[in-house]
Amino acid sequence: MTTNIRVRYCECDPMRVAHHAAYIPWLEVARTELLRAAGMSYAKLEHDGVFLVIVRMEATYRRPIYYDDLVGVTATWVGGSRVKINHEYELRVVERDASAGPIDPTLVVAVARTTLGCVDAQGKITPLPDWLSGR
Amino acid sequence: MTTNIRVRYCECDPMRVAHHAAYIPWLEVARTELLRAAGMSYAKLEHDGVFLVIVRMEATYRRPIYYDDLVGVTATWVGGSRVKINHEYELRVVERDASAGPIDPTLVVAVARTTLGCVDAQGKITPLPDWLSGR
Amino acid sequence: MTTNIRVRYCECDPMRVAHHAAYIPWLEVARTELLRAAGMSYAKLEHDGVFLVIVRMEATYRRPIYYDDLVGVTATWVGGSRVKINHEYELRVVERDASAGPIDPTLVVAVARTTLGCVDAQGKITPLPDWLSGR
Amino acid sequence: MTTNIRVRYCECDPMRVAHHAAYIPWLEVARTELLRAAGMSYAKLEHDGVFLVIVRMEATYRRPIYYDDLVGVTATWVGGSRVKINHEYELRVVERDASAGPIDPTLVVAVARTTLGCVDAQGKITPLPDWLSGR
Repeated sequence: MTTNIRVRYCECDPMRVAHHAAYIPWLEVARTELLRAAGMSYAKLEHDGVFLVIVRMEATYRRPIYYDDLVGVTATWVGGSRVKINHEYELRVVERDASAGPIDPTLVVAVARTTLGCVDAQGKITPLPDWLSGR
Repeated sequence: MTTNIRVRYCECDPMRVAHHAAYIPWLEVARTELLRAAGMSYAKLEHDGVFLVIVRMEATYRRPIYYDDLVGVTATWVGGSRVKINHEYELRVVERDASAGPIDPTLVVAVARTTLGCVDAQGKITPLPDWLSGR
Repeated sequence: MTTNIRVRYCECDPMRVAHHAAYIPWLEVARTELLRAAGMSYAKLEHDGVFLVIVRMEATYRRPIYYDDLVGVTATWVGGSRVKINHEYELRVVERDASAGPIDPTLVVAVARTTLGCVDAQGKITPLPDWLSGR
Repeated sequence: MTTNIRVRYCECDPMRVAHHAAYIPWLEVARTELLRAAGMSYAKLEHDGVFLVIVRMEATYRRPIYYDDLVGVTATWVGGSRVKINHEYELRVVERDASAGPIDPTLVVAVARTTLGCVDAQGKITPLPDWLSGR
Protein backbone atom coordinates (compact mmCIF):
# COMPACT_ATOMS: atom_id res chain seq x y z
CA MET A 1 0.00 0.00 0.00
CA THR A 2 1.28 3.46 -0.91
CA THR A 3 0.75 6.56 1.22
CA ASN A 4 1.53 9.95 -0.30
CA ILE A 5 3.32 12.40 1.98
CA ARG A 6 4.08 16.04 1.12
CA VAL A 7 7.59 17.07 2.25
CA ARG A 8 7.40 19.89 4.82
CA TYR A 9 9.75 22.87 4.75
CA CYS A 10 10.97 22.11 8.28
CA GLU A 11 11.90 18.58 7.14
CA CYS A 12 14.47 20.00 4.71
CA ASP A 13 18.00 20.99 5.59
CA PRO A 14 20.59 23.51 4.38
CA MET A 15 21.44 21.21 1.43
CA ARG A 16 17.83 21.98 0.36
CA VAL A 17 16.82 18.32 0.57
CA ALA A 18 14.73 16.35 3.01
CA HIS A 19 16.94 15.54 6.01
CA HIS A 20 17.59 11.81 6.40
CA ALA A 21 15.95 11.76 9.85
CA ALA A 22 12.71 13.13 8.37
CA TYR A 23 12.16 9.91 6.41
CA ILE A 24 11.73 7.87 9.60
CA PRO A 25 8.36 9.33 10.63
CA TRP A 26 7.18 8.85 7.03
CA LEU A 27 7.83 5.11 7.36
CA GLU A 28 5.78 5.12 10.56
CA VAL A 29 2.93 6.97 8.81
CA ALA A 30 3.01 4.47 5.91
CA ARG A 31 2.87 1.36 8.11
CA THR A 32 0.10 2.95 10.20
CA GLU A 33 -1.97 3.52 7.05
CA LEU A 34 -1.25 -0.08 6.03
CA LEU A 35 -2.67 -1.19 9.38
CA ARG A 36 -5.66 1.13 8.96
CA ALA A 37 -6.33 -0.33 5.49
CA ALA A 38 -6.42 -3.74 7.20
CA GLY A 39 -9.24 -2.41 9.38
CA MET A 40 -7.31 -1.53 12.56
CA SER A 41 -5.99 1.76 13.86
CA TYR A 42 -2.78 1.80 15.84
CA ALA A 43 -4.49 4.20 18.28
CA LYS A 44 -7.07 1.47 18.96
CA LEU A 45 -4.33 -1.15 19.29
CA GLU A 46 -2.59 0.87 22.03
CA HIS A 47 -5.96 1.47 23.67
CA ASP A 48 -6.27 -2.34 23.83
CA GLY A 49 -2.85 -2.59 25.52
CA VAL A 50 -0.79 -3.69 22.51
CA PHE A 51 2.28 -1.57 21.75
CA LEU A 52 4.59 -1.96 18.75
CA VAL A 53 8.13 -0.71 19.29
CA ILE A 54 10.96 -0.38 16.78
CA VAL A 55 13.77 -2.84 17.49
CA ARG A 56 15.66 -2.47 14.21
CA MET A 57 15.65 -0.06 11.30
CA GLU A 58 17.74 0.39 8.18
CA ALA A 59 17.48 2.84 5.31
CA THR A 60 19.34 3.41 2.07
CA TYR A 61 19.18 6.83 0.44
CA ARG A 62 19.65 6.74 -3.34
CA ARG A 63 18.47 10.11 -4.61
CA PRO A 64 17.66 13.41 -2.85
CA ILE A 65 14.06 14.32 -2.08
CA TYR A 66 13.20 18.03 -2.22
CA TYR A 67 10.92 20.40 -0.36
CA ASP A 68 7.28 20.15 -1.47
CA ASP A 69 7.87 16.84 -3.28
CA LEU A 70 4.96 14.45 -2.95
CA VAL A 71 6.58 11.21 -1.79
CA GLY A 72 4.85 7.87 -2.32
CA VAL A 73 5.86 5.56 0.53
CA THR A 74 5.00 1.94 -0.25
CA ALA A 75 4.96 -0.22 2.89
CA THR A 76 4.77 -4.01 2.75
CA TRP A 77 4.46 -6.59 5.52
CA VAL A 78 7.25 -9.14 5.01
CA GLY A 79 6.77 -11.67 7.77
CA GLY A 80 7.98 -11.80 11.34
CA SER A 81 7.35 -14.11 14.27
CA ARG A 82 4.98 -14.48 17.23
CA VAL A 83 6.43 -11.27 18.70
CA LYS A 84 7.89 -9.38 15.72
CA ILE A 85 6.69 -7.80 12.46
CA ASN A 86 8.96 -6.90 9.55
CA HIS A 87 8.15 -4.23 6.98
CA GLU A 88 9.88 -3.11 3.82
CA TYR A 89 9.47 0.30 2.26
CA GLU A 90 10.08 1.86 -1.14
CA LEU A 91 9.97 5.62 -1.60
CA ARG A 92 9.26 7.35 -4.90
CA VAL A 93 8.75 11.02 -5.79
CA VAL A 94 5.35 11.07 -7.45
CA GLU A 95 4.98 14.84 -7.88
CA ARG A 96 7.49 17.72 -7.93
CA ASP A 97 7.09 21.43 -8.54
CA ALA A 98 7.94 22.18 -12.18
CA SER A 99 10.49 24.79 -11.06
CA ALA A 100 12.47 22.01 -9.34
CA GLY A 101 12.85 19.91 -12.48
CA PRO A 102 11.43 16.67 -13.89
CA ILE A 103 10.92 13.41 -11.99
CA ASP A 104 10.63 9.73 -12.85
CA PRO A 105 7.70 8.60 -10.66
CA THR A 106 8.73 4.93 -11.04
CA LEU A 107 12.25 5.49 -9.69
CA VAL A 108 12.84 4.19 -6.16
CA VAL A 109 14.71 7.02 -4.40
CA ALA A 110 15.07 5.28 -1.03
CA VAL A 111 14.40 1.90 0.55
CA ALA A 112 14.04 0.93 4.18
CA ARG A 113 13.29 -2.02 6.43
CA THR A 114 12.02 -2.07 9.99
CA THR A 115 11.38 -4.68 12.67
CA LEU A 116 8.74 -3.98 15.28
CA GLY A 117 8.48 -5.87 18.54
CA CYS A 118 5.22 -6.34 20.42
CA VAL A 119 5.15 -5.25 24.07
CA ASP A 120 2.47 -4.67 26.68
CA ALA A 121 1.84 -1.45 28.60
CA GLN A 122 4.71 -2.32 30.98
CA GLY A 123 7.13 -2.78 28.06
CA LYS A 124 7.26 -6.59 28.42
CA ILE A 125 7.59 -8.62 25.22
CA THR A 126 4.22 -10.15 24.49
CA PRO A 127 2.76 -12.22 21.61
CA LEU A 128 1.16 -10.29 18.76
CA PRO A 129 -2.63 -10.50 18.47
CA ASP A 130 -3.43 -13.55 16.29
CA TRP A 131 -4.87 -11.52 13.44
CA LEU A 132 -1.62 -9.50 13.28
CA SER A 133 0.90 -12.35 13.59
CA GLY A 134 -1.03 -14.41 11.08
CA ARG A 135 -0.39 -11.87 8.34
CA MET B 1 -9.00 27.48 3.66
CA THR B 2 -8.75 24.36 5.80
CA THR B 3 -6.02 21.73 5.45
CA ASN B 4 -6.47 18.41 7.23
CA ILE B 5 -3.37 17.02 8.93
CA ARG B 6 -3.13 13.61 10.61
CA VAL B 7 -1.20 13.76 13.92
CA ARG B 8 1.93 11.59 13.75
CA TYR B 9 3.04 9.37 16.62
CA CYS B 10 6.41 11.14 16.85
CA GLU B 11 4.56 14.47 17.24
CA CYS B 12 3.05 13.28 20.53
CA ASP B 13 4.75 13.44 23.90
CA PRO B 14 4.67 11.47 27.18
CA MET B 15 1.40 13.23 28.14
CA ARG B 16 -0.01 11.35 25.13
CA VAL B 17 -0.94 14.60 23.35
CA ALA B 18 0.54 16.43 20.39
CA HIS B 19 3.56 18.39 21.65
CA HIS B 20 3.07 22.16 21.40
CA ALA B 21 6.07 22.51 19.07
CA ALA B 22 4.47 20.08 16.60
CA TYR B 23 1.68 22.56 15.84
CA ILE B 24 4.13 25.05 14.30
CA PRO B 25 4.93 23.02 11.16
CA TRP B 26 1.16 22.42 10.74
CA LEU B 27 0.64 26.19 10.51
CA GLU B 28 3.34 26.30 7.84
CA VAL B 29 1.68 23.48 5.91
CA ALA B 30 -1.70 25.25 6.12
CA ARG B 31 -0.43 28.61 4.84
CA THR B 32 1.51 26.82 2.06
CA GLU B 33 -1.70 25.11 0.93
CA LEU B 34 -3.48 28.48 1.09
CA LEU B 35 -0.81 29.85 -1.26
CA ARG B 36 -1.14 26.81 -3.53
CA ALA B 37 -4.91 27.30 -3.68
CA ALA B 38 -4.17 30.84 -4.86
CA GLY B 39 -2.23 29.32 -7.75
CA MET B 40 1.34 29.64 -6.44
CA SER B 41 3.65 27.14 -4.82
CA TYR B 42 6.09 28.35 -2.19
CA ALA B 43 8.73 26.16 -3.86
CA LYS B 44 8.25 28.22 -7.02
CA LEU B 45 8.36 31.47 -5.04
CA GLU B 46 11.78 30.57 -3.58
CA HIS B 47 12.93 29.48 -7.02
CA ASP B 48 12.05 33.04 -8.15
CA GLY B 49 14.16 34.49 -5.32
CA VAL B 50 11.36 35.42 -2.91
CA PHE B 51 11.71 34.06 0.63
CA LEU B 52 9.13 34.39 3.39
CA VAL B 53 10.56 34.24 6.92
CA ILE B 54 8.73 34.13 10.23
CA VAL B 55 9.24 37.30 12.25
CA ARG B 56 6.52 36.75 14.84
CA MET B 57 4.37 33.89 15.99
CA GLU B 58 1.87 33.34 18.78
CA ALA B 59 -0.27 30.37 19.67
CA THR B 60 -2.90 29.62 22.29
CA TYR B 61 -3.61 26.01 23.21
CA ARG B 62 -7.14 25.43 24.50
CA ARG B 63 -7.68 21.67 24.36
CA PRO B 64 -5.31 18.73 23.89
CA ILE B 65 -4.93 17.11 20.47
CA TYR B 66 -4.26 13.36 20.47
CA TYR B 67 -2.27 10.93 18.36
CA ASP B 68 -4.00 10.00 15.11
CA ASP B 69 -6.48 12.90 15.37
CA LEU B 70 -7.25 14.49 12.03
CA VAL B 71 -6.71 18.20 12.63
CA GLY B 72 -8.37 20.79 10.41
CA VAL B 73 -6.07 23.83 10.26
CA THR B 74 -7.89 26.86 8.87
CA ALA B 75 -5.46 29.55 7.67
CA THR B 76 -6.61 33.05 6.73
CA TRP B 77 -4.67 35.99 5.30
CA VAL B 78 -5.34 39.00 7.53
CA GLY B 79 -3.43 41.84 5.91
CA GLY B 80 0.14 43.00 6.25
CA SER B 81 2.23 45.62 4.49
CA ARG B 82 4.57 45.99 1.50
CA VAL B 83 7.02 43.64 3.22
CA LYS B 84 4.91 41.60 5.69
CA ILE B 85 2.01 39.14 5.59
CA ASN B 86 -0.15 38.25 8.59
CA HIS B 87 -2.06 35.00 8.95
CA GLU B 88 -4.49 33.73 11.54
CA TYR B 89 -5.17 30.07 12.21
CA GLU B 90 -7.90 28.05 13.88
CA LEU B 91 -7.40 24.37 14.66
CA ARG B 92 -10.23 21.88 15.08
CA VAL B 93 -10.20 18.10 15.56
CA VAL B 94 -12.34 16.83 12.70
CA GLU B 95 -11.84 13.09 13.25
CA ARG B 96 -10.71 11.00 16.23
CA ASP B 97 -10.44 7.28 16.77
CA ALA B 98 -13.56 6.03 18.53
CA SER B 99 -11.42 4.44 21.26
CA ALA B 100 -10.15 7.94 22.20
CA GLY B 101 -13.61 9.36 22.84
CA PRO B 102 -16.01 11.76 21.13
CA ILE B 103 -15.12 15.11 19.52
CA ASP B 104 -16.93 18.32 18.67
CA PRO B 105 -15.64 19.10 15.14
CA THR B 106 -16.77 22.75 15.45
CA LEU B 107 -14.76 23.40 18.62
CA VAL B 108 -11.61 25.50 18.11
CA VAL B 109 -8.91 23.68 20.09
CA ALA B 110 -6.08 26.11 19.32
CA VAL B 111 -5.56 29.47 17.62
CA ALA B 112 -2.41 31.05 16.26
CA ARG B 113 -1.17 34.11 14.43
CA THR B 114 2.01 34.58 12.41
CA THR B 115 3.78 37.43 10.65
CA LEU B 116 6.01 36.64 7.70
CA GLY B 117 8.60 39.04 6.33
CA CYS B 118 9.71 39.03 2.72
CA VAL B 119 13.46 38.74 2.07
CA ASP B 120 15.65 38.05 -0.95
CA ALA B 121 18.19 35.24 -1.32
CA GLN B 122 20.71 37.28 0.72
CA GLY B 123 18.23 37.74 3.57
CA LYS B 124 17.62 41.44 2.83
CA ILE B 125 14.11 42.79 3.42
CA THR B 126 12.46 43.22 0.05
CA PRO B 127 8.94 44.19 -1.12
CA LEU B 128 6.45 41.37 -1.61
CA PRO B 129 5.48 40.54 -5.19
CA ASP B 130 2.49 42.76 -6.08
CA TRP B 131 0.06 39.88 -6.40
CA LEU B 132 0.97 38.77 -2.85
CA SER B 133 0.97 42.16 -1.08
CA GLY B 134 -2.28 43.07 -2.81
CA ARG B 135 -4.13 40.29 -1.04
CA MET C 1 19.65 31.46 33.94
CA THR C 2 21.27 30.82 30.57
CA THR C 3 21.49 27.41 28.91
CA ASN C 4 23.75 27.01 25.89
CA ILE C 5 22.35 24.94 23.03
CA ARG C 6 24.25 23.94 19.89
CA VAL C 7 22.11 24.25 16.74
CA ARG C 8 21.72 20.85 15.06
CA TYR C 9 21.92 20.39 11.29
CA CYS C 10 18.41 18.91 11.17
CA GLU C 11 17.11 22.04 12.92
CA CYS C 12 18.13 24.18 9.94
CA ASP C 13 16.12 24.69 6.79
CA PRO C 14 16.82 25.41 3.10
CA MET C 15 17.42 29.10 3.94
CA ARG C 16 20.42 27.74 5.89
CA VAL C 17 19.08 29.09 9.19
CA ALA C 18 17.49 27.45 12.22
CA HIS C 19 13.83 26.83 11.38
CA HIS C 20 11.46 28.87 13.57
CA ALA C 21 9.83 25.71 14.97
CA ALA C 22 13.22 24.49 16.23
CA TYR C 23 13.42 27.33 18.76
CA ILE C 24 10.40 26.00 20.67
CA PRO C 25 12.12 22.89 22.12
CA TRP C 26 15.07 25.13 23.08
CA LEU C 27 12.73 27.22 25.27
CA GLU C 28 11.55 24.00 26.89
CA VAL C 29 15.14 22.90 27.54
CA ALA C 30 15.98 26.30 29.05
CA ARG C 31 13.02 26.37 31.46
CA THR C 32 13.73 22.75 32.42
CA GLU C 33 17.31 23.68 33.31
CA LEU C 34 15.99 26.67 35.26
CA LEU C 35 13.83 24.24 37.24
CA ARG C 36 16.78 21.89 37.73
CA ALA C 37 18.90 24.79 39.01
CA ALA C 38 16.12 25.38 41.58
CA GLY C 39 16.69 21.82 42.79
CA MET C 40 13.85 20.03 40.99
CA SER C 41 13.79 17.96 37.82
CA TYR C 42 10.71 18.05 35.63
CA ALA C 43 11.00 14.25 35.31
CA LYS C 44 10.57 14.05 39.11
CA LEU C 45 7.66 16.51 39.00
CA GLU C 46 5.77 14.31 36.52
CA HIS C 47 6.65 11.25 38.59
CA ASP C 48 4.91 13.06 41.48
CA GLY C 49 1.81 13.61 39.33
CA VAL C 50 2.36 17.28 38.46
CA PHE C 51 2.28 18.12 34.74
CA LEU C 52 3.03 21.51 33.20
CA VAL C 53 1.37 22.13 29.83
CA ILE C 54 1.82 25.04 27.44
CA VAL C 55 -1.30 27.18 27.20
CA ARG C 56 0.22 30.16 25.39
CA MET C 57 3.43 30.91 23.54
CA GLU C 58 4.74 33.83 21.55
CA ALA C 59 8.07 34.40 19.86
CA THR C 60 9.69 37.24 17.93
CA TYR C 61 12.53 36.45 15.56
CA ARG C 62 14.92 39.38 15.05
CA ARG C 63 18.02 37.90 13.44
CA PRO C 64 18.75 34.52 11.82
CA ILE C 65 20.51 31.79 13.80
CA TYR C 66 22.79 29.52 11.80
CA TYR C 67 23.79 25.85 11.87
CA ASP C 68 26.37 25.05 14.57
CA ASP C 69 25.79 28.38 16.35
CA LEU C 70 25.95 28.07 20.12
CA VAL C 71 22.76 29.75 21.32
CA GLY C 72 22.48 31.10 24.85
CA VAL C 73 18.85 30.82 25.94
CA THR C 74 18.14 32.92 29.02
CA ALA C 75 14.91 31.87 30.76
CA THR C 76 13.33 33.91 33.55
CA TRP C 77 10.29 33.22 35.73
CA VAL C 78 8.01 36.26 35.50
CA GLY C 79 5.11 35.45 37.77
CA GLY C 80 1.88 33.57 37.23
CA SER C 81 -0.94 32.45 39.47
CA ARG C 82 -1.99 29.45 41.58
CA VAL C 83 -2.29 27.39 38.40
CA LYS C 84 -0.04 29.16 35.87
CA ILE C 85 3.63 30.04 35.41
CA ASN C 86 4.95 32.65 32.99
CA HIS C 87 8.45 32.64 31.54
CA GLU C 88 10.32 35.08 29.34
CA TYR C 89 13.26 34.14 27.15
CA GLU C 90 16.08 35.97 25.42
CA LEU C 91 18.23 34.21 22.83
CA ARG C 92 21.76 35.26 21.92
CA VAL C 93 24.37 33.68 19.67
CA VAL C 94 27.36 33.22 21.95
CA GLU C 95 29.62 31.31 19.55
CA ARG C 96 29.69 30.97 15.74
CA ASP C 97 32.08 29.23 13.39
CA ALA C 98 34.58 31.77 12.04
CA SER C 99 33.69 30.79 8.47
CA ALA C 100 30.13 32.00 9.10
CA GLY C 101 31.15 35.51 10.10
CA PRO C 102 31.39 37.58 13.30
CA ILE C 103 28.77 37.75 16.07
CA ASP C 104 27.81 40.19 18.81
CA PRO C 105 27.25 37.90 21.82
CA THR C 106 25.26 40.62 23.62
CA LEU C 107 22.72 41.03 20.81
CA VAL C 108 19.30 39.52 21.50
CA VAL C 109 18.41 37.65 18.31
CA ALA C 110 15.01 36.39 19.47
CA VAL C 111 12.64 36.79 22.42
CA ALA C 112 9.79 34.61 23.57
CA ARG C 113 7.21 34.26 26.29
CA THR C 114 5.29 31.20 27.47
CA THR C 115 2.51 30.43 29.91
CA LEU C 116 2.36 26.97 31.46
CA GLY C 117 -0.71 25.58 33.15
CA CYS C 118 -0.55 22.98 35.91
CA VAL C 119 -2.60 19.81 35.42
CA ASP C 120 -2.79 16.41 37.08
CA ALA C 121 -2.32 13.02 35.39
CA GLN C 122 -5.91 13.18 34.09
CA GLY C 123 -5.33 16.60 32.51
CA LYS C 124 -7.43 18.46 35.10
CA ILE C 125 -6.29 21.95 36.11
CA THR C 126 -4.71 21.70 39.52
CA PRO C 127 -2.87 24.14 41.83
CA LEU C 128 0.90 24.36 41.47
CA PRO C 129 2.97 22.89 44.29
CA ASP C 130 3.51 25.67 46.86
CA TRP C 131 7.24 25.91 46.32
CA LEU C 132 6.59 26.47 42.58
CA SER C 133 3.73 28.97 42.77
CA GLY C 134 5.53 30.91 45.45
CA ARG C 135 8.35 31.76 43.05
CA MET D 1 34.69 9.88 21.32
CA THR D 2 31.58 10.19 23.48
CA THR D 3 29.16 13.12 23.36
CA ASN D 4 26.56 13.45 26.10
CA ILE D 5 23.08 14.45 24.98
CA ARG D 6 20.15 15.23 27.28
CA VAL D 7 16.87 13.72 26.03
CA ARG D 8 14.33 16.47 25.30
CA TYR D 9 10.67 16.19 26.23
CA CYS D 10 9.58 16.66 22.62
CA GLU D 11 11.83 13.73 21.64
CA CYS D 12 9.72 11.35 23.74
CA ASP D 13 6.51 9.71 22.62
CA PRO D 14 3.30 8.43 24.25
CA MET D 15 5.14 5.27 25.40
CA ARG D 16 7.17 7.73 27.54
CA VAL D 17 10.44 6.80 25.82
CA ALA D 18 12.62 8.58 23.29
CA HIS D 19 11.04 8.06 19.86
CA HIS D 20 13.24 5.98 17.54
CA ALA D 21 13.51 8.84 15.02
CA ALA D 22 14.95 11.12 17.71
CA TYR D 23 18.12 9.00 17.91
CA ILE D 24 19.11 9.91 14.34
CA PRO D 25 19.97 13.57 15.00
CA TRP D 26 21.95 12.41 18.07
CA LEU D 27 24.17 10.31 15.79
CA GLU D 28 24.70 13.39 13.63
CA VAL D 29 25.63 15.47 16.68
CA ALA D 30 28.09 12.79 17.85
CA ARG D 31 29.91 12.47 14.51
CA THR D 32 30.01 16.29 14.22
CA GLU D 33 31.69 16.50 17.62
CA LEU D 34 34.10 13.74 16.55
CA LEU D 35 35.00 15.89 13.54
CA ARG D 36 35.37 18.97 15.76
CA ALA D 37 37.66 17.04 18.10
CA ALA D 38 39.79 16.31 15.00
CA GLY D 39 40.11 20.07 14.52
CA MET D 40 37.48 20.65 11.84
CA SER D 41 33.92 21.92 12.05
CA TYR D 42 31.35 20.59 9.63
CA ALA D 43 30.12 24.19 9.18
CA LYS D 44 33.61 25.06 7.89
CA LEU D 45 33.66 21.97 5.66
CA GLU D 46 30.43 23.04 3.95
CA HIS D 47 31.75 26.58 3.68
CA ASP D 48 34.68 25.04 1.77
CA GLY D 49 32.26 23.27 -0.60
CA VAL D 50 32.46 19.77 0.90
CA PHE D 51 29.12 18.19 1.81
CA LEU D 52 28.64 14.85 3.58
CA VAL D 53 25.32 13.15 2.89
CA ILE D 54 23.86 10.02 4.45
CA VAL D 55 23.67 7.15 1.99
CA ARG D 56 22.96 4.35 4.46
CA MET D 57 21.93 4.07 8.08
CA GLU D 58 20.99 1.24 10.40
CA ALA D 59 20.07 1.20 14.07
CA THR D 60 19.24 -1.46 16.62
CA TYR D 61 17.27 -0.49 19.71
CA ARG D 62 17.93 -2.74 22.70
CA ARG D 63 16.55 -0.89 25.71
CA PRO D 64 14.26 2.15 26.06
CA ILE D 65 15.73 5.58 26.72
CA TYR D 66 13.62 7.91 28.87
CA TYR D 67 12.93 11.63 29.03
CA ASP D 68 15.73 13.60 30.72
CA ASP D 69 18.18 10.69 30.46
CA LEU D 70 21.71 11.80 29.71
CA VAL D 71 22.76 9.65 26.76
CA GLY D 72 26.41 9.04 25.99
CA VAL D 73 26.77 8.61 22.22
CA THR D 74 30.12 7.09 21.30
CA ALA D 75 30.97 7.62 17.62
CA THR D 76 33.87 5.87 15.92
CA TRP D 77 35.27 6.22 12.41
CA VAL D 78 35.45 2.69 10.91
CA GLY D 79 36.92 3.19 7.46
CA GLY D 80 35.38 4.00 4.12
CA SER D 81 36.75 4.81 0.69
CA ARG D 82 37.83 7.81 -1.42
CA VAL D 83 34.21 9.01 -1.40
CA LYS D 84 32.63 7.40 1.66
CA ILE D 85 33.03 7.42 5.45
CA ASN D 86 31.61 4.79 7.79
CA HIS D 87 30.83 5.39 11.44
CA GLU D 88 29.67 3.12 14.23
CA TYR D 89 27.83 4.29 17.32
CA GLU D 90 27.13 2.93 20.78
CA LEU D 91 24.58 4.59 23.03
CA ARG D 92 24.57 4.32 26.82
CA VAL D 93 22.46 6.01 29.49
CA VAL D 94 25.02 7.70 31.73
CA GLU D 95 22.61 9.55 34.02
CA ARG D 96 18.91 9.10 34.87
CA ASP D 97 16.62 10.88 37.31
CA ALA D 98 16.40 8.83 40.52
CA SER D 99 12.59 8.78 40.26
CA ALA D 100 12.92 6.85 36.96
CA GLY D 101 14.96 4.01 38.45
CA PRO D 102 18.57 2.80 38.40
CA ILE D 103 20.81 2.54 35.32
CA ASP D 104 23.88 0.57 34.30
CA PRO D 105 26.07 3.20 32.62
CA THR D 106 28.15 0.52 30.89
CA LEU D 107 25.16 -1.12 29.19
CA VAL D 108 24.86 -0.43 25.47
CA VAL D 109 21.18 0.44 24.94
CA ALA D 110 21.40 1.02 21.18
CA VAL D 111 23.89 0.64 18.35
CA ALA D 112 23.97 2.23 14.91
CA ARG D 113 26.04 2.44 11.76
CA THR D 114 26.04 5.11 9.06
CA THR D 115 27.71 5.62 5.69
CA LEU D 116 28.27 9.17 4.48
CA GLY D 117 29.02 10.05 0.88
CA CYS D 118 31.01 13.11 -0.12
CA VAL D 119 29.39 15.47 -2.62
CA ASP D 120 30.06 18.99 -3.90
CA ALA D 121 27.67 21.95 -3.76
CA GLN D 122 25.87 20.62 -6.86
CA GLY D 123 25.36 17.21 -5.22
CA LYS D 124 27.93 15.44 -7.43
CA ILE D 125 29.98 12.66 -5.84
CA THR D 126 33.43 14.00 -5.15
CA PRO D 127 36.56 12.65 -3.42
CA LEU D 128 36.88 13.33 0.30
CA PRO D 129 39.55 15.84 1.34
CA ASP D 130 42.80 13.89 1.85
CA TRP D 131 42.95 14.49 5.59
CA LEU D 132 39.44 13.04 5.92
CA SER D 133 39.77 10.00 3.63
CA GLY D 134 43.11 9.15 5.19
CA ARG D 135 41.51 8.53 8.56
